[in-house]
Amino acid sequence: MIGVAQSIPEAIVREHIAKLCGQMRERDIAATIVFDASNMLAFTGTPHMSWDRLTCGVVTREGDVRVVCPAFERPGVCGADKIASIHTWQEHQNPYDIFASAMRVAGISCGAVGVDGRIWLSAWHRFADACGDKIKLQSAEEMIREVRICKSPLEQDALRGAHRRGERAFLAMKSIIRGGASEIELQRELAEKLAPEGITITPMVQSGPNGAIPHNPTGDRKLQQGDTVVMDSVTPFDGYFNDITRTYAVGEPSDRAKKAYRAVREAQQAAIDAAKPGVECQQLDKIARGIITEAGFGEFFTHRLGHGLGIEVHEPPFLVGGNSEKLRAGMCVTIEPGVYVPGEFGIRIEDDILITDNGCEVIRGELTTDVTDAFD
Amino acid sequence: MIGVAQSIPEAIVREHIAKLCGQMRERDIAATIVFDASNMLAFTGTPHMSWDRLTCGVVTREGDVRVVCPAFERPGVCGADKIASIHTWQEHQNPYDIFASAMRVAGISCGAVGVDGRIWLSAWHRFADACGDKIKLQSAEEMIREVRICKSPLEQDALRGAHRRGERAFLAMKSIIRGGASEIELQRELAEKLAPEGITITPMVQSGPNGAIPHNPTGDRKLQQGDTVVMDSVTPFDGYFNDITRTYAVGEPSDRAKKAYRAVREAQQAAIDAAKPGVECQQLDKIARGIITEAGFGEFFTHRLGHGLGIEVHEPPFLVGGNSEKLRAGMCVTIEPGVYVPGEFGIRIEDDILITDNGCEVIRGELTTDVTDAFD
Repeated sequence: MIGVAQSIPEAIVREHIAKLCGQMRERDIAATIVFDASNMLAFTGTPHMSWDRLTCGVVTREGDVRVVCPAFERPGVCGADKIASIHTWQEHQNPYDIFASAMRVAGISCGAVGVDGRIWLSAWHRFADACGDKIKLQSAEEMIREVRICKSPLEQDALRGAHRRGERAFLAMKSIIRGGASEIELQRELAEKLAPEGITITPMVQSGPNGAIPHNPTGDRKLQQGDTVVMDSVTPFDGYFNDITRTYAVGEPSDRAKKAYRAVREAQQAAIDAAKPGVECQQLDKIARGIITEAGFGEFFTHRLGHGLGIEVHEPPFLVGGNSEKLRAGMCVTIEPGVYVPGEFGIRIEDDILITDNGCEVIRGELTTDVTDAFD
Repeated sequence: MIGVAQSIPEAIVREHIAKLCGQMRERDIAATIVFDASNMLAFTGTPHMSWDRLTCGVVTREGDVRVVCPAFERPGVCGADKIASIHTWQEHQNPYDIFASAMRVAGISCGAVGVDGRIWLSAWHRFADACGDKIKLQSAEEMIREVRICKSPLEQDALRGAHRRGERAFLAMKSIIRGGASEIELQRELAEKLAPEGITITPMVQSGPNGAIPHNPTGDRKLQQGDTVVMDSVTPFDGYFNDITRTYAVGEPSDRAKKAYRAVREAQQAAIDAAKPGVECQQLDKIARGIITEAGFGEFFTHRLGHGLGIEVHEPPFLVGGNSEKLRAGMCVTIEPGVYVPGEFGIRIEDDILITDNGCEVIRGELTTDVTDAFD
């Protein structure tokens, strides 16, 4: 699992809060309790969440924001200082008592209160007890989803910034990839190369047959002549992630791999060409899958076409068969068709796109789709 | 947050399952749904859990174990192969339909079913829908807690193995700590030094005033003469963690730091001496806190004395004021008093103990309590 970034611009958090307040007014919800790291970052400015010690946020319909956290963790939640009032609890106290007093100070004593869909069941019961009978807890999943799913211009800038950082690893890989080096050696070399730029990166590098297992961990397999090499990497910037994959080659790939690569490239472009507001998520998946199937590799495209991208690397909407949700301007999604032939090779090309008013913007800097001409 | 280990011996998983079956029989529960990474590892042998794609486990009262996971993630859950039947779902399918069919195959069609306390609220609602009206979901938090809280001889061996790995970093630190090196340089040097032994480690290194913030991230501060340096590290082995802290010094610490160190050491020993079955968790905290308070540092001991240790680094029981839970043979807890004087220094000494029939065993190898004589 990939976590969330450590910080986010205050202005973006304020946008989220304003949108959430709008949602709460529409639905007559008095306040929302946030719990998950991604929602803590989005609505309070700190990604700290509960582990064994309660940490949570409360956002009222009027835009009052409070964070409840352990006293000795106070320095760690300083990202919330400009946004929220902080209520700390000492180790010997019951943190839900401090939560209850934060609710009282915020003026929430009755009515409907929304709760983060990613709250733990055990915490839900404790929140309910602390709130008492006059407050009715209900899931805030849909409200929060609605707030986060379309990205504002500020968020779009953060996504572009994340891309500019993220693509550095892919550009650097072009000059260091070589037969005989192991996956993990290349991963380390890239990390060292980018550290002076202030970029921390741990790209997933999968060579030859390892590439056929989409989430296979980077290991000590040495790259061999004829290998395709899949590199997938994410990098945060201002709270938002990029998510890029490119497929490299060592020497000459097999004819089958070349054919698969070209089908994947064509499928990706076709999906990008079709992306615009009003198109169903499943439709993009269908378009890409159709091209890969036509080329004879349908059974080897084993995952969905893509996913939403933002504060989390995987978030709604999902470009997958069965999802009739329609694309809207401001959504950011990955387009990442792949072909995985067990025991032979893996191929994937992944870019991030922003849905615009009448099409989409591929988030792009210097990195082109092809990082080698070995497949042509 | 620290995750859980990637693997665990099959025999330990089978012990957990047997204990959970016993709990289910006692409480007339037909099955338990596990969700969190730690419970997935404990009861199915794989730490994979849901992120945006449903992954969960089902354990029936008769000991039948099933894992539901995405088809393309199948290679990643191979740790569950000897324990569980695997039910995979394709990207275009509703994973809760596959969960429902796994329940049918397991013979669970009515009655009470326990659910992991760390399940997300959103998933809880979906599980409830998938189970239908004849199954009544309820929290399995207490059952699972009971299964995991006392460690079997096999688990105790894993904890000892984790200690043997973990202490290597502390022994190595003795010879590399030096003024002028930054915290992060020392962290990297330790990681490189231990890599050939197959030990992956990222110890937290906090120097001088940074040590006064217990969870401060390791940074680029350079060690200076007179610094105390707190190093805290965890390492997994066979699914179980160690958790050790030692306090080093560069040159001569201040008289105040020396006094604090000696109080912390005395407090730790007193708590260890008092640890045995029947003693309340809060009592150990009180004993240690009394000694530190007596020495004049009470206000600077800002966290609880310790926490349970096992598949998670922090798990029940917690040695904290207000917790009247009694120690039992087989519990493993950390004893980690500390003194944190803001802007000046931090000191902490942490060891892991196993409660025995009439006292406790300090899990110990070559590493002694003092790693320097600078404080005496």
